[in-house]
Amino acid sequence: MTTVSWVDVDEDAGFGIENLPYGVFARPGEMPRVGVAIGDRVLDLAAMSAAGLVEDRHYFASGSLNAFMVAGRPAWRANRDRVTELLTDASYRGRVEPHLIPVSDVELLRPFEVADYVDFYSNEHHAANAGRMFRPNADPLTPNWKRLPVAYHGRAGTVYPSGTPIIRPYGQRRTPGDPEPSYGPSLRLDFEAEVGFVAGVPSSAGRGVPTSAFRDHVFGFVLVNDWSARDIQAWESQPLGPFLGKSFATSVSSWVVPVAALEAARVTPPVQDPAPLPYLRCDDPWGLDLHLEIQINGQVAARPQFASMYWTPPQQLAHATVNGAPLRTGDLFASGTVSGPERGQRGCMLELSWNGREPLELPDGTKRTFLEDGDTVTIRAQAPGAAGSRIAFGEVTGTVHPPQP
Amino acid sequence: MTTVSWVDVDEDAGFGIENLPYGVFARPGEMPRVGVAIGDRVLDLAAMSAAGLVEDRHYFASGSLNAFMVAGRPAWRANRDRVTELLTDASYRGRVEPHLIPVSDVELLRPFEVADYVDFYSNEHHAANAGRMFRPNADPLTPNWKRLPVAYHGRAGTVYPSGTPIIRPYGQRRTPGDPEPSYGPSLRLDFEAEVGFVAGVPSSAGRGVPTSAFRDHVFGFVLVNDWSARDIQAWESQPLGPFLGKSFATSVSSWVVPVAALEAARVTPPVQDPAPLPYLRCDDPWGLDLHLEIQINGQVAARPQFASMYWTPPQQLAHATVNGAPLRTGDLFASGTVSGPERGQRGCMLELSWNGREPLELPDGTKRTFLEDGDTVTIRAQAPGAAGSRIAFGEVTGTVHPPQP
Repeated sequence: MTTVSWVDVDEDAGFGIENLPYGVFARPGEMPRVGVAIGDRVLDLAAMSAAGLVEDRHYFASGSLNAFMVAGRPAWRANRDRVTELLTDASYRGRVEPHLIPVSDVELLRPFEVADYVDFYSNEHHAANAGRMFRPNADPLTPNWKRLPVAYHGRAGTVYPSGTPIIRPYGQRRTPGDPEPSYGPSLRLDFEAEVGFVAGVPSSAGRGVPTSAFRDHVFGFVLVNDWSARDIQAWESQPLGPFLGKSFATSVSSWVVPVAALEAARVTPPVQDPAPLPYLRCDDPWGLDLHLEIQINGQVAARPQFASMYWTPPQQLAHATVNGAPLRTGDLFASGTVSGPERGQRGCMLELSWNGREPLELPDGTKRTFLEDGDTVTIRAQAPGAAGSRIAFGEVTGTVHPPQP
Repeated sequence: MTTVSWVDVDEDAGFGIENLPYGVFARPGEMPRVGVAIGDRVLDLAAMSAAGLVEDRHYFASGSLNAFMVAGRPAWRANRDRVTELLTDASYRGRVEPHLIPVSDVELLRPFEVADYVDFYSNEHHAANAGRMFRPNADPLTPNWKRLPVAYHGRAGTVYPSGTPIIRPYGQRRTPGDPEPSYGPSLRLDFEAEVGFVAGVPSSAGRGVPTSAFRDHVFGFVLVNDWSARDIQAWESQPLGPFLGKSFATSVSSWVVPVAALEAARVTPPVQDPAPLPYLRCDDPWGLDLHLEIQINGQVAARPQFASMYWTPPQQLAHATVNGAPLRTGDLFASGTVSGPERGQRGCMLELSWNGREPLELPDGTKRTFLEDGDTVTIRAQAPGAAGSRIAFGEVTGTVHPPQP
């Protein structure tokens, strides 16, 4: 299928007719509403529904995607098909064009309200690198790592939209060798490049979501920057895991890429050995050929490849619910840092500078071990789309601000 | 101050005029609304406000306490003073009595919507016992334990009201000595007796809540049962902490005891050595003389003493926000298992049966290592109140149901 939109679109930018990601936007002085990105414009779905052009059961005039996300896969597909029709059939142009707004004229807001936030640890390169640094005398991977997708709950209340300033956190940390812990702004502020998915349709308590039901519950994917304070994290994490080293901020991209837009990006994931337990088996290949790019102050720092993830999104969801914990609309699941076997594919400064011992040199010659005040970190991603197209994720960006006294 | 209510109250039961805890209730066929417990009755605050007897800015007709919790300390105090006046001045009796409903005629619902849920680990006896069992060759306490109140984020979406059935969770676990992990219902299902507090007034991002501001943000206290699957937890927890071993269910009591009702219960907490960093210092004593009682199937299993907690609630809150993570209305913070130096004071089966090696014998002769299907666990607590009164916490109870296939 080849479809061409009557909207003028730069195909290389990845916001063409095969993508159609959802977001929440506002123009100055107006209420937030739901829109779809096409090229460098936003299609105002609230106005479209008021004009009778798309079906709406009060999904689109609200300030979040949650009402639409709960509606389920038939509603998602119907709207996607209808928007595709409206943007490709030139006979609609006269009625639709008034509802296309330049992205530069709007503010993009947090696309959905987060219920619970779970962060996985599903990239073997990242987990092994972290193991080598923090547990040098043990196996890089803990014994459970290839048996289940390790994860923990993060703080839902500090999931922020792209562009939110990141205030360097205060906290308690102890440098190895110091007899006493000290208090002050984090000295090892880091980013983590991740890919997340958000649940739309809830599930029942007491019953898990099998891998085969992934698309019935999951609305779409976002980019995630799970900001981390490595010194705070290292000191606090035993025995119950990360807490304040993570909970100050997590940024998500403004656009949610529908699951349907990523069908052409699905690839066979790495071989899993040992074979996972039956509840984690997945008949369909659910690796995703997403190419991430991390920039620090506009300079390329790394290019992680999401196809290298050991555990896939349906496996993550099946695991997170196997104990009967129900899904809620807005539950966000992040992949964990996306890294690769090469240094230029590592997804955080902890790995890129090997815990500060080998500074990263950016193309313009500046060097970093961890992030400095004023640094801007931007993560982008593209994937192959249907009919040879490209699917872009909206960027997730944030600038480090000095600590507040 | 001695105050006497015209409502007939059994003072020993702890729901007298010095307590006045808040909850959410519904009568069959009616909408949920906010009420206050007095004796064995509920004062219907929604009806009281409709009758012009209490001030209400739409706090009380909603199905949760959140709208009232966000109103802040002056509103909490004004309503408490007014309810005290109405229930003690006999001249109001004729107008108020129609709005007193027997507790036995109503259903008590979850009192508030949980934003984020944080679980601490602040009892030294519990932490040391767990350390002895799980890390027998190391110090019972990790090096950070007396420097900061260790905590992790739990799952807000599975915080349930007292009485909710607890379905035994499925999961992946490996018995020590087994070469392979296996899948099935948890074989080591446990409870944890805890005390939680809930935030009412939000705080700003980037700024912590000092220990001195605790009462400006915190609405009240509840009892918490942090149900735990020890076999799932033990296998999954390295390196990022508990996840599915905890996230299937957490129960909270139906009544929220206002902070103001616990002033007479405040005691000096255990000496902290080493002295905590300045951000964790607390000028006022914030130990709480709460006496917990755990029953299994109506038989007393243990009597933990909350006054033995090493870290106090204001210290927990200051720590959880020191990195600039803002508070949201409905944020729930649980203490961690309350245990004591004696076996009869331990707050979970893990400790009471020493990880299953020493079965607990209940007064009627039944023995337990961990919980069996059909077991009902009920936690209650009392504290000294003003003028020699007693302050009761509403019970938190739950019955273990068989796993769902």
